[in-house]
Amino acid sequence: MFSRLILRRFSSQPIPSQIKDIIEKKPINEYITVNGWVKALRRMKKIKFLDLDDGSTSQKLQVLLPSSFDLSRLSYHSGVTVTGTIKESSHPKQEIELHADKIQSHGSWSGDVSYPFAIRQSVPMDYVRQFQHVRSRTNTFSSILRLRAQTRACLTEHYARTGFLQVDTPILTSNECEGGGATFSLQTEEGKKNKEALFFGKDVFLSVSGQMHLEALANGLSSVYTFNPAFRAEESLGRRHLAEFWMVEAEEAFVEGEAGLEHLLDRVEALVRDTIHNVLERGGEDIKLMFKQNTATEGILREALSKPFARITFAEALQRLSSAPKSQSSRGGDDDEKDSNASIKQDSDVRESERRSSDVVADDSNSDLRREDELLLTELLNGPVFVTHWPAHGRPFYMARSLDHPDKVLCADLLLPGVGEVAGGSVREQNPLALQQRLPRTQNLNWYLQLRQWGSVPTAGYGLGFERLLLFLLGANTVKDVIPFPRWPKHCEH
Amino acid sequence: MFSRLILRRFSSQPIPSQIKDIIEKKPINEYITVNGWVKALRRMKKIKFLDLDDGSTSQKLQVLLPSSFDLSRLSYHSGVTVTGTIKESSHPKQEIELHADKIQSHGSWSGDVSYPFAIRQSVPMDYVRQFQHVRSRTNTFSSILRLRAQTRACLTEHYARTGFLQVDTPILTSNECEGGGATFSLQTEEGKKNKEALFFGKDVFLSVSGQMHLEALANGLSSVYTFNPAFRAEESLGRRHLAEFWMVEAEEAFVEGEAGLEHLLDRVEALVRDTIHNVLERGGEDIKLMFKQNTATEGILREALSKPFARITFAEALQRLSSAPKSQSSRGGDDDEKDSNASIKQDSDVRESERRSSDVVADDSNSDLRREDELLLTELLNGPVFVTHWPAHGRPFYMARSLDHPDKVLCADLLLPGVGEVAGGSVREQNPLALQQRLPRTQNLNWYLQLRQWGSVPTAGYGLGFERLLLFLLGANTVKDVIPFPRWPKHCEH
Repeated sequence: MFSRLILRRFSSQPIPSQIKDIIEKKPINEYITVNGWVKALRRMKKIKFLDLDDGSTSQKLQVLLPSSFDLSRLSYHSGVTVTGTIKESSHPKQEIELHADKIQSHGSWSGDVSYPFAIRQSVPMDYVRQFQHVRSRTNTFSSILRLRAQTRACLTEHYARTGFLQVDTPILTSNECEGGGATFSLQTEEGKKNKEALFFGKDVFLSVSGQMHLEALANGLSSVYTFNPAFRAEESLGRRHLAEFWMVEAEEAFVEGEAGLEHLLDRVEALVRDTIHNVLERGGEDIKLMFKQNTATEGILREALSKPFARITFAEALQRLSSAPKSQSSRGGDDDEKDSNASIKQDSDVRESERRSSDVVADDSNSDLRREDELLLTELLNGPVFVTHWPAHGRPFYMARSLDHPDKVLCADLLLPGVGEVAGGSVREQNPLALQQRLPRTQNLNWYLQLRQWGSVPTAGYGLGFERLLLFLLGANTVKDVIPFPRWPKHCEH
Repeated sequence: MFSRLILRRFSSQPIPSQIKDIIEKKPINEYITVNGWVKALRRMKKIKFLDLDDGSTSQKLQVLLPSSFDLSRLSYHSGVTVTGTIKESSHPKQEIELHADKIQSHGSWSGDVSYPFAIRQSVPMDYVRQFQHVRSRTNTFSSILRLRAQTRACLTEHYARTGFLQVDTPILTSNECEGGGATFSLQTEEGKKNKEALFFGKDVFLSVSGQMHLEALANGLSSVYTFNPAFRAEESLGRRHLAEFWMVEAEEAFVEGEAGLEHLLDRVEALVRDTIHNVLERGGEDIKLMFKQNTATEGILREALSKPFARITFAEALQRLSSAPKSQSSRGGDDDEKDSNASIKQDSDVRESERRSSDVVADDSNSDLRREDELLLTELLNGPVFVTHWPAHGRPFYMARSLDHPDKVLCADLLLPGVGEVAGGSVREQNPLALQQRLPRTQNLNWYLQLRQWGSVPTAGYGLGFERLLLFLLGANTVKDVIPFPRWPKHCEH
């Protein structure tokens, strides 16, 4: 039957043009084929128009239809393939238009009253969010997805330029990190019936951070990073929280002490500044759309670029907060999605492993910052703020102590205006004896200890929440609107 | 305490040079600082040497030590910071060397008898694999990790060049796909005690494929891809199988029918050819090391580039297999890691969702290929082979039927020499009624059906196993050696 052992020269089929390229290159008088969806239909005296969108850009291609064309064959969001000639446009709002010869409609779609979106209808993001499987068809969400991809590419380029190698830390891990409450564990059908049949022979969890694995890899490759999903089983409904989110984490060898902490902050600052530059300079129509919807954002981004990020110690942060006017300190702490359920936690770090356990906060009211404190600090200092040298008491076991102030650890959080904590990092404890004393006994972390016993070098690293960074860059309202399929408590529909 | 609200100009600290850059740029007479690990120590008449490795390249930097330097302070794998001047080398094997003024040793490491690696010792990969947390310190594994990162970057560039947008499909999903046996499900501490307290309000699984979510996104963005971890709870110990692996998946809108299948194959072929070009042309010393260890690999890669990939139908594949000499058909089927446990499955696809269920194979011995068949086909056709038009019976519900041959589906597997199946893809069924009839009733896939009811356009897509591609490109022996922390049954130690 239809044998096709084709020993042809390798050549790909002619591929239809993308609207992004057409609008950029303006191939006047060229005869082209383009695919896309109908976003508007207009009938003027003798001419019929449609606006075509293919998701490659937020700009639409205006298509002139043959006057004989029966418009009733199309509806909002019909998928079509159009062939015709690119001409200069007489319309003031666009330079080119496509004069169609042929138009082919896909499927039998002619609009369905249950379809959640309609022509020329502007709908709020929390309405769009209810239809995650079709929201990439909306203008705003497709802009967000293009900006998300562009920001990711910017991060990747930044790491390549600064000599960091991308590696993959595992999602499945036998380390619970900070206690089982906030981690998901795995099970299989067999494992449910019979503990002996556990797939991995032990309990296994979804990673909350790739830090320890990065430390292992940094000890052979010097500078490494990972861009991975991370998971938190926290009952949090806040606008900054997801049960599944993406995190960029980096670790660098031969970095230690106070100078090492400064170097770490330089690294994080350079990375964040790069992404701000990137959206401002290369975000194009997509970022313009976001700035139109969130009018304060562009000013906040330009202000952040105008001067170095502030660096203050935790002690200084407390001083500044205590002398701040009361009225200010209550501002900005509102979580627009705060749940009526009082037991729902609203605050936790980007990085579970850098997290302060809640009992410590209860013991010592001066060892942590509330979310409203974080936001107030960025207001008081009018921009991004690194808070460094946190109290050692209650911090994770792997953080190095400050030599000058042994009650402080060499760590930092980066707070961004309107978002709060976006990144956290530290210089790591290198002394195997000090580490062994602080290591949680419940954890099977002998391999981590062995890294030092077998001659590791000092390292420092950080984790940065990708969706929180996007919240800052795009001025979006919630992390649920900057990821294609958000997962949060009681929400995993698709 | 030590206030540091620094309003300085933004400038990063001077960063030590990487050995890769030094060897490339040869900055003769420049005074530099470099970090790294001692890989060899040599004492000649009046001079002492060490070979320095920082993981940025497989090449070592030769360092001349001051004659007064006490060599006993260092041992194999000591971490050091060296400052000195780059000079031309008199040694025939290198062009430059570093004449050290200062050398600082990190930590107190002076070798530990339990350390698994030793100077000038060559060890097999299955020995190295037992020490995953320190294997990035070995020459071969660090080469593999650099080539892995380079191949990933090549894929990313390929997609950007061909107009595909990177998106993130979720790891956590309420769809089991092909039945519960091969998926991991999630649980939380609360959920264990109380079914009502299920974190997501329902059973949730780790994704085996992002295909359906990609289809949803392709319907707004035209051409999308994702590079994600995927999970299989299969009791497989084969050299091609991991419980957690990385997969690149792509979906393209406005692609349908027989011509769409050819277009899909062109896409996959262009992608794989790009990665072959990439390792051959840009793999440098790292790929030379791999080719030295796996001498047949370079020839296989060059042969694959020399002509178009073969494209044969499943029916033709069966004909060719049945007429192949018996002696040949038994070759290549050996799994070097085949377990003594006969119940362990050795064969399953890259993509669970493209998988044929085993009962179908039992019903109809002519509806699937065994691993040894896959390898034999690549031998018979002397290179990569696409097998297309598989029997519709037993294939997944979402595959479109061939119009000319309604008992066949428009799908293809890509088989690569020495590895077997690496990618699988299909044109998707667009008709909502046909889809509804075939949809598994146990699955909550109304949202997937809704995509069509609300006017989707035809799409086609594929999934490609990243570690299997690396197996082919690097000539490695098992997928466990091309991922930093492999997970397989009973193995999740770190």
